[in-house]
Amino acid sequence: HGAPTVIVMPSDAPAVKIATTRALGAEVVLYDRAGGENREEIGAKLASERNLTLIRPYDEPEVIAWQGTCGLEIAEDINEMGIESGEVLVCCGGGGLTSGIALAMAADAPGMKVRPCEPEDFDDVTRSLETGSIQANDALSGSICDAIITPQPGNLTFPIMTELCGPGVVVIEDECLRAMALAFERLRIVIEPGGAAGLAGALFHDTSDTVVAVATGGNVDKDMFQRALETL
Amino acid sequence: HGAPTVIVMPSDAPAVKIATTRALGAEVVLYDRAGGENREEIGAKLASERNLTLIRPYDEPEVIAWQGTCGLEIAEDINEMGIESGEVLVCCGGGGLTSGIALAMAADAPGMKVRPCEPEDFDDVTRSLETGSIQANDALSGSICDAIITPQPGNLTFPIMTELCGPGVVVIEDECLRAMALAFERLRIVIEPGGAAGLAGALFHDTSDTVVAVATGGNVDKDMFQRALETL
Repeated sequence: HGAPTVIVMPSDAPAVKIATTRALGAEVVLYDRAGGENREEIGAKLASERNLTLIRPYDEPEVIAWQGTCGLEIAEDINEMGIESGEVLVCCGGGGLTSGIALAMAADAPGMKVRPCEPEDFDDVTRSLETGSIQANDALSGSICDAIITPQPGNLTFPIMTELCGPGVVVIEDECLRAMALAFERLRIVIEPGGAAGLAGALFHDTSDTVVAVATGGNVDKDMFQRALETL
Repeated sequence: HGAPTVIVMPSDAPAVKIATTRALGAEVVLYDRAGGENREEIGAKLASERNLTLIRPYDEPEVIAWQGTCGLEIAEDINEMGIESGEVLVCCGGGGLTSGIALAMAADAPGMKVRPCEPEDFDDVTRSLETGSIQANDALSGSICDAIITPQPGNLTFPIMTELCGPGVVVIEDECLRAMALAFERLRIVIEPGGAAGLAGALFHDTSDTVVAVATGGNVDKDMFQRALETL
């Protein structure tokens, strides 16, 4: 739409993500999530001061719907292949992608159960689903899975996941690195650590025999990718 | 088709390529191309002894036609975008992919000129197009672009390239490594050195302003990929 865009991004995001976002024409506002700065407050303040429309990264109906188009594509493939039941493992931060895909599955491939995959110590969605109420993470940073480290499930996404999703899968960082390396070796794609959480769940955890893993996000600096390659 | 398959492959192919081919169910017969073993002879002997159908890697009508489907997809996109002229840079070994794409362009996007891209010292197609007769390479190994190191253009592919292709582009190995690194960083795909020759041509050589680069082949071991990442 040619609209000016301001992106609020944690300062520990991969350098390539910050650089690419700027190269695409956005203004990037960095904040220190480890130091306790709150992105919701920063976003609200910017929107108010500059008269901008605030688009939240996951607790936003249109974002959930757009991310759900990934689920529509999965459902199309699943149905073409005649698969009637199984699990869809989705890397999960605030739950936008997860709940979008879950809505698509409920509509078009209801035999497929969506399961959120999260890194150890940042398993807010898994614990929220277990307890039936929104649980927050103790820390706000300190994981290589930077893109899916969110404070807690969203107010819109949590009810959707409660209704539609199966139990969460909690992966460890080394499993994400190994999943990245296998994706390099066998799929020839570049995935960031957090984006590999679903694939790590599929590869290293107890799941259904029929499983779809969503691998998304390729913002990874070379040092981190080399760490992943070292697991081969 | 469930047919038993024997693949003749140079012994200096990437380990991941040999392992993956075997994992897919093929028998892999290795030969020493640096030591002067001739794969055409090995293939012909195997086919005769075991009563197998010989399929050459590039000098084979169906292989050229199948590789040309990549060109049909390019033409579709080009025409959708309203692009009327430009260049298609194709990583080139024996010329199967190059001539297949050139045939597709001639049919569906005749304003696009296909140019073969080859590594320095293995520029047999470029020299053959320049001189108008089939030229061989001096060496049969010794490039990181292992998959596109072929002795000379094919008997079927050379006339097609003579009729349809523009001048070759000769890239150096460091350009291939840098193209791999940029593909990692910006496209999030894994390309092998030879598969990056077209992209290297587009990035670092004098070409048309409108250029399509074909990047194909992701058989690269981690050490080589790390070498590429070091160029960032």
